[in-house]
Amino acid sequence: MSREERILNNARKVVAMTDNTDQIDGSDFFGEGMYYQALTMGRDLHAMSLHYVMFIPTLQGQTDDEQLDEWLTKAISRAVVGTYAQTELGHGTNLSKLETTATYDSATEEFVLNSPTITAAKWWPGGLGKSSNYAVVVAQLYTKGECKGPHPFIVQLRDDETHMPLKGIRLGDIGPKLGINGNDNGFLLFDKVRIPRRALLMRYAKVKPDGTYVAPAHSKLGYGTMVFVRSIMIKDQSTQLAAAATIATRYASVRRQGEISPGKGEVQIIDYQTQQFRVFPQMARAFAFMAAATEIRDLYMTVTEQLTHGNTELLAELHVLSSGLKSIVSWDTAQGIEQCRLACGGHGYSQASGFPEIYGYAVGGCTYEGENLVMLLQVARFLMRAAEGVRKGSAKLADIGAYIGKTGPKTSRLTTHYHYTDADLVADLEHAARKQVFRAYDRLKKAQEHLSPEDAWNSVSVELAKASRWHVRVYLVKNFLNKVALAPQDLKFVLTDVARLYAYDIITSSIGAFLEDGYMSSNQMNEVKEGIYECLAKIRPNAVALVDSWDYDDKELKSVLGRRDGNVYPALLEWAQNSQLNRSDVLPSHTKYLGPMMKDARSKL
Amino acid sequence: MSREERILNNARKVVAMTDNTDQIDGSDFFGEGMYYQALTMGRDLHAMSLHYVMFIPTLQGQTDDEQLDEWLTKAISRAVVGTYAQTELGHGTNLSKLETTATYDSATEEFVLNSPTITAAKWWPGGLGKSSNYAVVVAQLYTKGECKGPHPFIVQLRDDETHMPLKGIRLGDIGPKLGINGNDNGFLLFDKVRIPRRALLMRYAKVKPDGTYVAPAHSKLGYGTMVFVRSIMIKDQSTQLAAAATIATRYASVRRQGEISPGKGEVQIIDYQTQQFRVFPQMARAFAFMAAATEIRDLYMTVTEQLTHGNTELLAELHVLSSGLKSIVSWDTAQGIEQCRLACGGHGYSQASGFPEIYGYAVGGCTYEGENLVMLLQVARFLMRAAEGVRKGSAKLADIGAYIGKTGPKTSRLTTHYHYTDADLVADLEHAARKQVFRAYDRLKKAQEHLSPEDAWNSVSVELAKASRWHVRVYLVKNFLNKVALAPQDLKFVLTDVARLYAYDIITSSIGAFLEDGYMSSNQMNEVKEGIYECLAKIRPNAVALVDSWDYDDKELKSVLGRRDGNVYPALLEWAQNSQLNRSDVLPSHTKYLGPMMKDARSKL
Repeated sequence: MSREERILNNARKVVAMTDNTDQIDGSDFFGEGMYYQALTMGRDLHAMSLHYVMFIPTLQGQTDDEQLDEWLTKAISRAVVGTYAQTELGHGTNLSKLETTATYDSATEEFVLNSPTITAAKWWPGGLGKSSNYAVVVAQLYTKGECKGPHPFIVQLRDDETHMPLKGIRLGDIGPKLGINGNDNGFLLFDKVRIPRRALLMRYAKVKPDGTYVAPAHSKLGYGTMVFVRSIMIKDQSTQLAAAATIATRYASVRRQGEISPGKGEVQIIDYQTQQFRVFPQMARAFAFMAAATEIRDLYMTVTEQLTHGNTELLAELHVLSSGLKSIVSWDTAQGIEQCRLACGGHGYSQASGFPEIYGYAVGGCTYEGENLVMLLQVARFLMRAAEGVRKGSAKLADIGAYIGKTGPKTSRLTTHYHYTDADLVADLEHAARKQVFRAYDRLKKAQEHLSPEDAWNSVSVELAKASRWHVRVYLVKNFLNKVALAPQDLKFVLTDVARLYAYDIITSSIGAFLEDGYMSSNQMNEVKEGIYECLAKIRPNAVALVDSWDYDDKELKSVLGRRDGNVYPALLEWAQNSQLNRSDVLPSHTKYLGPMMKDARSKL
Repeated sequence: MSREERILNNARKVVAMTDNTDQIDGSDFFGEGMYYQALTMGRDLHAMSLHYVMFIPTLQGQTDDEQLDEWLTKAISRAVVGTYAQTELGHGTNLSKLETTATYDSATEEFVLNSPTITAAKWWPGGLGKSSNYAVVVAQLYTKGECKGPHPFIVQLRDDETHMPLKGIRLGDIGPKLGINGNDNGFLLFDKVRIPRRALLMRYAKVKPDGTYVAPAHSKLGYGTMVFVRSIMIKDQSTQLAAAATIATRYASVRRQGEISPGKGEVQIIDYQTQQFRVFPQMARAFAFMAAATEIRDLYMTVTEQLTHGNTELLAELHVLSSGLKSIVSWDTAQGIEQCRLACGGHGYSQASGFPEIYGYAVGGCTYEGENLVMLLQVARFLMRAAEGVRKGSAKLADIGAYIGKTGPKTSRLTTHYHYTDADLVADLEHAARKQVFRAYDRLKKAQEHLSPEDAWNSVSVELAKASRWHVRVYLVKNFLNKVALAPQDLKFVLTDVARLYAYDIITSSIGAFLEDGYMSSNQMNEVKEGIYECLAKIRPNAVALVDSWDYDDKELKSVLGRRDGNVYPALLEWAQNSQLNRSDVLPSHTKYLGPMMKDARSKL
């Protein structure tokens, strides 16, 4: 389909889908809601993606009661379609430098929205280009000559009846992308557009009719929506990686290539150790990330509940955790999908495999909702404060950072991988994480001796990001092991291999962190490697059952290679025959160009 | 453009391009030839890609004199358009299991081509679906009731005049892919198609009229074409990575985000250490790969010259080297392109950046012309023979594998990175490579004690592949350092930082290999890390000049972000406004679906 056709088809589907949302359990957005959407829409998003994921949650989080009544009613009944316009052409993650202004005019009790430059154009919001008629727009609030920083405003963009852009508003689609081309990500420029005072979402900050600014009670209360979206992302990303691992595992059981024992026929490629080593760690990651997604969803629920009582205790911790997880999970997911795709050889390159779409969709997650590296450096700020606290003896560390203040063993307690307890494994990972946190901290302190705080931070930022990665990975392993420990005995047996593979893979991908200063010996490291090979061999007979446990419907997976019935080759041929190019035997490219070229040459031979 | 439009447009361009090939220096295919094609065709390939890269070289390499006269004349004059059909739906890298048969019938002096199953369908050849009317088809040769293995045949597929498929031939396009959608990769099935005896390309193997089979003198003489294609690939891949590094480096100099020093305004993101750490190593890799591409081209020329005198001395070495390089270069290129893309934040996800196309095109190289992991295991066979020779005292190692037989220092000679000589650096890398080669060898020998040779090989294949990676990387570093040593003094000064960054990055990505058994101390490893940070800082002021030295024309680069004039933002807005979706303000998706949905809801409020 062309982009126009996809946009049209997606609009048809999303209206039908939302016509029927009362059929599903709306309270379970993370579960049924996401599944229903995946089944209906695939991996192309749609005109109302941002409406549900950003517009409505922002209204819920940022409006006062009167605004909530008006706007939430309209949004939920689908009388308006909204999006969330924050990022600008020249400004992404650094919110404080957004250029769009909303200047209060007390004479008319209006704000004037303006885009002073090209780089101030709002850029990227999903559904902004063509579908939405409203948006929450984030702009620098000016009142009484002072800038109060970025604030959210609700703004009508298009006429209710004609759907034409309102006066002073210039907007459109931003063009084709790596993926999600059925969504109309858009741009938006304001030329002195007047909106009422009450367009400012006033739950926390307010502007009175005379222009007096009332600051919010807690500066981080606005984090709620971001945390919500990142929580959903972790679930969504793990689902994409699981889809990729399902396709690769199933196809590796169907595909035969090469003989291991001469004369015994070609073997299933899943029997090759190298194939197992490519695919099974991706499956293990998907399980680990799903375990984290459940945890962070619960934490989000708890924090939301606490916030309604004004309790912000856990908010900072959740914010740090969700930022770090978003970064690690999205990166490992993208890498993992590509590994699965490459493990399927040439057929992985075909759209028939489903991989190009899965990758194009998932890899966006490395960038949107906070660029990964920026996220890691935010986590690093938390880690450096924790390290400082430990060094000064004043640390108050919540659960997830407690290891930073602990004294672990001097050397790894690993003897053989058969006797490697969860506790010893976690102690080893915590050692590596703690070591990197303090390496970064010490380098930072040293750099601060001769550089400004900002230059010092920049000069050690590679080490800081590395510390954040360790921090998150320790969390992921601990959480996965905890979840497996709670599983029924027969499941625990199988899942332990998966969790161990996940952990061992992290260790052997950073051998240096463990050999350093003799914390582990080469022999101990060899034990971990043996552990991997053992896990691969033990997972092999359970591999198909493990991915089947995710219960993907063929309709949801959308992959000829990953078909549940394994009938791959006839299906590939059928799929190919439906190629748009096969509608006729001879194409205009032959009739117009290649045919005359050959005829001319033949006549001269 | 739709696929039909792209196919048509590419056919127009390739005919025009080849009308004018006499304007360029045809003897310099690696240089001018590839550049001319890149300028004309971009990264979409075209109907005649395989004609020039596989069909003609195969004719040159595999025909006897009479066949050469007939077919090369037709191919070069463009009286026919040919492709190379080897891979099948169910069979890729394992050539010996191809299912297509060519059975000799001495009664009519013909071969009968047949595809006995669906998995025997030829699958993937570029230009096979719609454009080509001839192909070199690889099929199992049967004569006098015996199978003689896969052999190449020249086969007419479509009628000269009508371009319709000939009787018994079923073929078509295989559908859309991750990239290169302007090429009609195809499928092909034979139903007992008769071709003359002389369709067998008879330079090496022959079948006499009575069906007697004459075997070739040297079993590996057919490798020439593969080596040629892999040599081109290494050049091509390095060019793609260089394009990505150019875009990312230029954009990082234009983009400003965040303040390092408060109040001094936002800084160019290229000043962030993390940004340098993402992008500069990719630039360094591109230089390293280009240096290797030049070397392997020269080696290919030498071998081709030697082969005409029946000298096959260097052929095996070239085959191993080109297989290994193909694997490492294509993987690091794909990874590097994605790193560059992600380093450009959200705009990297837009097609305007050029990255999606560059990635989609380049990453195919991980799979085609020999799947990367299979290639690495081929290199490992050579390494295990070399290790065996060293252990038995009978090694005859050519230059590239000489380190396997050497005894290096017991510990690294590194003191500070300022005094780290090329020789010491290479010795350290050779140590790591040698260690991994013998680790794999010892594990293999041990496994062979209780397993069949094939199962033993499989059980250590992850370690074998790792040994091959080290082997190739040592070659890449040594070759790069050698080339830099030959550069003029003022260039050497700058390129040394780049080469060192390349080498240090390899070391710090595998810290464990050097810390193991105390070969390096933690302090020495910290010196290497300091070396990286030093290189990044020293490359920073030269970065734009370094990528400019590749002299990409905007027309060739095809990236709004990578524009030579740096005028990125207005160009992005202009590019977006040309989106096909912006041809009208209100789309049918609104008129048909979203509009009525909102109207209905409004009426009920």
